[in-house]
Amino acid sequence: MPLGEFELIHRYFTRDSVAAVLGIGDDAALLPVSRGKVLAVSTDMLVAGRHFFPDADPFLLGRKSLAVNLSDMAAMGALPRWVTLSLALPLADEAWLGSFADGFFSIADEFHVELVGGDTTKGPLNICVQIMGEVDPAKALRRDGARVGNLIWVSGALGEAALALRHLRGDLVLPKEIFSLCAARLHNPTPRVALGLALQGIASSAIDISDGLIGDLSHILSRSSVAGEIRLPDVPYNGDLHTLVNESWVRQALLAGGDDYELCFTAPSDQSEAIQEISKRLGLRLTAIGEIVSGSELIVRDANGNALNLDFKAFDHFR
Amino acid sequence: MPLGEFELIHRYFTRDSVAAVLGIGDDAALLPVSRGKVLAVSTDMLVAGRHFFPDADPFLLGRKSLAVNLSDMAAMGALPRWVTLSLALPLADEAWLGSFADGFFSIADEFHVELVGGDTTKGPLNICVQIMGEVDPAKALRRDGARVGNLIWVSGALGEAALALRHLRGDLVLPKEIFSLCAARLHNPTPRVALGLALQGIASSAIDISDGLIGDLSHILSRSSVAGEIRLPDVPYNGDLHTLVNESWVRQALLAGGDDYELCFTAPSDQSEAIQEISKRLGLRLTAIGEIVSGSELIVRDANGNALNLDFKAFDHFR
Repeated sequence: MPLGEFELIHRYFTRDSVAAVLGIGDDAALLPVSRGKVLAVSTDMLVAGRHFFPDADPFLLGRKSLAVNLSDMAAMGALPRWVTLSLALPLADEAWLGSFADGFFSIADEFHVELVGGDTTKGPLNICVQIMGEVDPAKALRRDGARVGNLIWVSGALGEAALALRHLRGDLVLPKEIFSLCAARLHNPTPRVALGLALQGIASSAIDISDGLIGDLSHILSRSSVAGEIRLPDVPYNGDLHTLVNESWVRQALLAGGDDYELCFTAPSDQSEAIQEISKRLGLRLTAIGEIVSGSELIVRDANGNALNLDFKAFDHFR
Repeated sequence: MPLGEFELIHRYFTRDSVAAVLGIGDDAALLPVSRGKVLAVSTDMLVAGRHFFPDADPFLLGRKSLAVNLSDMAAMGALPRWVTLSLALPLADEAWLGSFADGFFSIADEFHVELVGGDTTKGPLNICVQIMGEVDPAKALRRDGARVGNLIWVSGALGEAALALRHLRGDLVLPKEIFSLCAARLHNPTPRVALGLALQGIASSAIDISDGLIGDLSHILSRSSVAGEIRLPDVPYNGDLHTLVNESWVRQALLAGGDDYELCFTAPSDQSEAIQEISKRLGLRLTAIGEIVSGSELIVRDANGNALNLDFKAFDHFR
């Protein structure tokens, strides 16, 4: 007998509730938001063939479907607390479900996030995750707080996830060891939750880099009604790419590659020391790559100070 | 040029924020949950070909995708406040999107619910809605509060949505006027939000009837560790069905038909007068159909008091 919907939820997705008043198994979960905090809520839908290959490793897919949502909490400076998961599945494949649930809960446990509800149905593979967290509304890292004179920062290193994706699609061929490193970034991104929390009261705005540095930074600029200048040689990449970094496709991956899930943020220049302290404490590279200026455009300068012609766009699901 | 993702969201789904601290356009929405209340959260995923016909009227589909989620808030006794919408679309069809958004916002406005975020992506048509509301945790209508001696009630009339669906699938043929009435129930259900709020402090448990009376009532019984007896002749149906009501498929629709989105609830018998008062005030039929007893089974009795053989199951997405 095939696995039923309720049995499926019970077997793979129901665990004892810890932080919820009422978790899975009623018409709604009941969640106590702490006094003085507001609810931060975000959702991401992942579609087979669009966001992942249909034969993707289900354990890593379970991790990534939650990781990209945790990244939105990080970008808001919010503490992630609860999550719901809606799944459309072509069939109830128990091996696939077991691995997916293991991956999902492995990262949920790392970040102390509780699965409180969801929905399962038959249909083309689709994973819709909604995450809920808490933040002091006065300290949230919004997109509209960048001011002229602020420095522009990014965490970690950029471009590797996009290079792995282009390799997998056959657009280019990476040396084997470089591909392994890049593939780990693509399939198993690290949401920068601790960084987002640490930047409360320090950063003036933040966003996570999911569609590419230029596209995502542009959201900060337009919401804040400012312009920006960044220096391409300062955009951080991992050492493994140094022999390739003059290739135009590496440049493109650094500036417009999606799926990095690093944070891009702005801060007054007198916060630079505090930011370096955070970098040391978290063991996470934080790099100033440019500055907020007045105007409305984003300019990227090369090593000679010349403005690059930005002929590539951020990823857009309908173009 | 095809409509881009950000343009699509801006054109069809972005409106001024009223009840949110921060709405669409940042990494997360920020939502102020009232003091003394907890967040009630629920999600439903609707898949083309499974929950609706691929050529369904997009205006009604927009309404229904929110209505089924509002119904979960009703079943919890929660006040619905915010919603997120994730959409996978095969292509950005502007006529379809315009009608869908009109339908979605028409019911959002009726219930004063604010769209605060979401996601759009390309893929097989899939609609994932998550709703968030508020409730006093001591007054929430949970599934686990039914007690022996409580009466079992249902709102409105049952079975019509299921009959319309079977007509559309070609399983049976309804007289024309009856089909029109049934189709309206199927495509445009009325979430019983005001009833859920009114039942706070009166009902001991509640659930919305989405998978069929027997299946949904069984959830209350198992979560409350009790049994129930209902009387088939008391299960309410609309007058239009009276000539058909002895047909076995009408009986099946009344007991096991999904998509009614009425509430099934239990209450101590000394609350019956208060419940009749609510019925009068809301202009909504409320009918006692049976009683909670000890044990673990659900028994349905016919007009002669004989137990029916329940050989039909509630709808299950994986059977």
